[in-house]
Amino acid sequence: MRNLLSIEEVDRDAMEAILGRAESFAEVGRRDIKKVPTLRGRTVVTLFYESSTRTQSSFELAAKRLSADLVSVKAAGSSVDKGESLKDTVATLSAYDPAAIVIRHPYAGAAQMVAGWTGAAVVNAGDGKHEHPSQALLDVYALRRRLGSLEGRRIWIVGDVLHSRVARSNLIAFRRMGAAVTLCGPPTLIPRGIEELGCEVTYSLDGLEEADVVYALRMQRERMSGSFVPSLREYAANFQIDTRRLGPRQLLMHPGPVNRGVEISGEAIDSPQSLIGEQVAAGLVVRMAILYEILAGQPERPAAFGDGPAAAEAAAPTIGQPA
Amino acid sequence: MRNLLSIEEVDRDAMEAILGRAESFAEVGRRDIKKVPTLRGRTVVTLFYESSTRTQSSFELAAKRLSADLVSVKAAGSSVDKGESLKDTVATLSAYDPAAIVIRHPYAGAAQMVAGWTGAAVVNAGDGKHEHPSQALLDVYALRRRLGSLEGRRIWIVGDVLHSRVARSNLIAFRRMGAAVTLCGPPTLIPRGIEELGCEVTYSLDGLEEADVVYALRMQRERMSGSFVPSLREYAANFQIDTRRLGPRQLLMHPGPVNRGVEISGEAIDSPQSLIGEQVAAGLVVRMAILYEILAGQPERPAAFGDGPAAAEAAAPTIGQPA
Amino acid sequence: MRNLLSIEEVDRDAMEAILGRAESFAEVGRRDIKKVPTLRGRTVVTLFYESSTRTQSSFELAAKRLSADLVSVKAAGSSVDKGESLKDTVATLSAYDPAAIVIRHPYAGAAQMVAGWTGAAVVNAGDGKHEHPSQALLDVYALRRRLGSLEGRRIWIVGDVLHSRVARSNLIAFRRMGAAVTLCGPPTLIPRGIEELGCEVTYSLDGLEEADVVYALRMQRERMSGSFVPSLREYAANFQIDTRRLGPRQLLMHPGPVNRGVEISGEAIDSPQSLIGEQVAAGLVVRMAILYEILAGQPERPAAFGDGPAAAEAAAPTIGQPA
Repeated sequence: MRNLLSIEEVDRDAMEAILGRAESFAEVGRRDIKKVPTLRGRTVVTLFYESSTRTQSSFELAAKRLSADLVSVKAAGSSVDKGESLKDTVATLSAYDPAAIVIRHPYAGAAQMVAGWTGAAVVNAGDGKHEHPSQALLDVYALRRRLGSLEGRRIWIVGDVLHSRVARSNLIAFRRMGAAVTLCGPPTLIPRGIEELGCEVTYSLDGLEEADVVYALRMQRERMSGSFVPSLREYAANFQIDTRRLGPRQLLMHPGPVNRGVEISGEAIDSPQSLIGEQVAAGLVVRMAILYEILAGQPERPAAFGDGPAAAEAAAPTIGQPA
Repeated sequence: MRNLLSIEEVDRDAMEAILGRAESFAEVGRRDIKKVPTLRGRTVVTLFYESSTRTQSSFELAAKRLSADLVSVKAAGSSVDKGESLKDTVATLSAYDPAAIVIRHPYAGAAQMVAGWTGAAVVNAGDGKHEHPSQALLDVYALRRRLGSLEGRRIWIVGDVLHSRVARSNLIAFRRMGAAVTLCGPPTLIPRGIEELGCEVTYSLDGLEEADVVYALRMQRERMSGSFVPSLREYAANFQIDTRRLGPRQLLMHPGPVNRGVEISGEAIDSPQSLIGEQVAAGLVVRMAILYEILAGQPERPAAFGDGPAAAEAAAPTIGQPA
Repeated sequence: MRNLLSIEEVDRDAMEAILGRAESFAEVGRRDIKKVPTLRGRTVVTLFYESSTRTQSSFELAAKRLSADLVSVKAAGSSVDKGESLKDTVATLSAYDPAAIVIRHPYAGAAQMVAGWTGAAVVNAGDGKHEHPSQALLDVYALRRRLGSLEGRRIWIVGDVLHSRVARSNLIAFRRMGAAVTLCGPPTLIPRGIEELGCEVTYSLDGLEEADVVYALRMQRERMSGSFVPSLREYAANFQIDTRRLGPRQLLMHPGPVNRGVEISGEAIDSPQSLIGEQVAAGLVVRMAILYEILAGQPERPAAFGDGPAAAEAAAPTIGQPA
């Protein structure tokens, strides 16, 4: 695997490799020194054209825990022709010979374009409404830790599917791991013909009790200007996940940040069925695993940090014990 | 000590421990490698809801000199319900299992609330008008280096006491170390009944010559809209500390950044009695000491960086010589 | 060399020292661990009063590859008296005892002033229309890698010379290395009397075919409000460098970021004659070399990172193999 551009191109074996690696990084996270020397002396660039505390801090901490040097570029939405300036920005950053560029961009396909312009590995951290593959991988990771396997599980993805790259990437990933997916939301927020991707579609929460997992999507307030839903209040009345609707054995997920009281009630967020905190923790180790899997095949990596037990572990090449 | 939420809860023994530790970090700062491996492989989060070049850069450099990995989150004042979003943000950041969260927030009591939501140690870097404990500790540190002891010293705190968390924290800390404190400012800027905290109050600079130390507070221009003082010019005429008012044996302090020509004259800032530069230097070593004292009791720390003298020191467990 | 304030004060020997050092850092950049322990435990401050993705990220990555701890201060243009606040900000940052302060400021002479206020080494990363010495050094470096020597070469600098610190620094540096320089642009954008610095001046691209190197300057859109040039379109018609005007053996340079289709055509940017990507790569190693040369003479530096081959190299004191 050279890049991570879309979840579509990650087959089940590659997913298993990342998930297994993430488990070993979770073990590292329980140590006192939560860090490995894998990428020491190499550079990771984060290039975010949309702000995202969660995804960005998680990729950046992942890079630091792999001992990489970080170049963090926040590109505010400027008025210049984005296509042109993106190309030149990528050329500039590529001149530093980074190991990887992690990019978030409002245009679908941006990460794919960037991969054509740089010798660095490219990780798509969200491109428009297209894909958010690291989110899908961390969600599978968090779910498997609770459920063991996704085989035969029923997952409902609820909310604004139309504008959601998370819905698209997760639908693909959940199905690839053997789950059955139902998309649920108001008709204006479900793309027509999406059943062809191999999922059920429903326009109300009736039947939700069959779900093993309820995955609520973020309602983007700025998009809710009357044309898609009459109001956030009406949306909440019909589609909000609350503790009344959520059964005691159903799991609740959300990509964050949550609009409390809109797509999920505050009580449900804080309930024991909620995986939201575990998803964030999963984000860190899965993103470490993504960088590791993409970059491990590249030019020889450093052997170890120094002497002592940490270094001994670091030098051990076993998969279960990442160095 | 698990957290540093307010100076009120730091007894004299705990203050002495931090101050002594800070002295040993000042010794580290005179070395060529101004760095110790104490927090290597652990994560420190800074979460600032108000901007502050001084306090934030000082905590962040302190974390780096302790070899921690840093996650720096600048949360601009957003329009969402702060109470809710703060809780969710803290939950997100806690999922990274940081050793400490350093928080500045415009609401009094915010740091206390955060401590209830996270397993990380919490350091209050300023919460509304309530407290700024690390400022009080660094001011005591800087003063003691000049005076030896604060016992029996007379300290005047001059200016906008009403809006100042620094005034409140420093009043407590100075008294705890044996100093007598006088608060001075226009009646509109001194809270009623504050004498009950064990200080004198005066509404003019008459009698300033008795002070060993004059601590000028920052006038916040945006708060000076007619209701508190007629104008900054009139405030300066009555309360500005200048070299005419400041005797040659009196020390001058200020938490920074100074409005030159308002609360202090430019000449006084640059005078030999001014401790302002020493306060900033004290900030770095005292904040290293705070993080060290709070986190030292937590799970085993790394032994050493590598080989050689630095590592030998690093492994030495003596208090006076932090590794 | 204590500071790098202007290219004027860097004589040919000092330039050769920096360029030679940069070559050895380029060799480090081809290794897997692109990092040396030279500045470990020391602090580099970047203080940028104007935003600059390129120069700032390049200095910061240079500091990280030298293993320094970085304090990055972005000072947005505030309304306060810049002269005063700059002095106080520098005093604050100096209290951290940094090895170097890298400053960009809109006022000509700002870096020189800062050098008078701090014990740290000062690197001018651009001061108003005055100088941008690290840009000149990296341009000489990038050119020499293609041409071997600048002796007797003819370099045309084309565009808005009037507002350009790059034009000024590069003119000096190119001449010092033996090149002949021609300044070209509309009369309103060439300062009167600049011939006295020892260059030719011309007001059209006629004769461009004699140039070995064409160095296009950035047109700052915000300055082009009718008083200097009628319009960007008219500027482009007369002075744009395109593949029609550029001969196959002429090299093309630009300090970036480029306004595609204004000072250079998109096709020319991507042509094999373009050195623009190499200039950025040169920026990293030349800025490492600048920090190294300025700070190498200061208090003893650490010997090595740890054990193993990286450390062995690190400990080797040869110039060609920087540690």
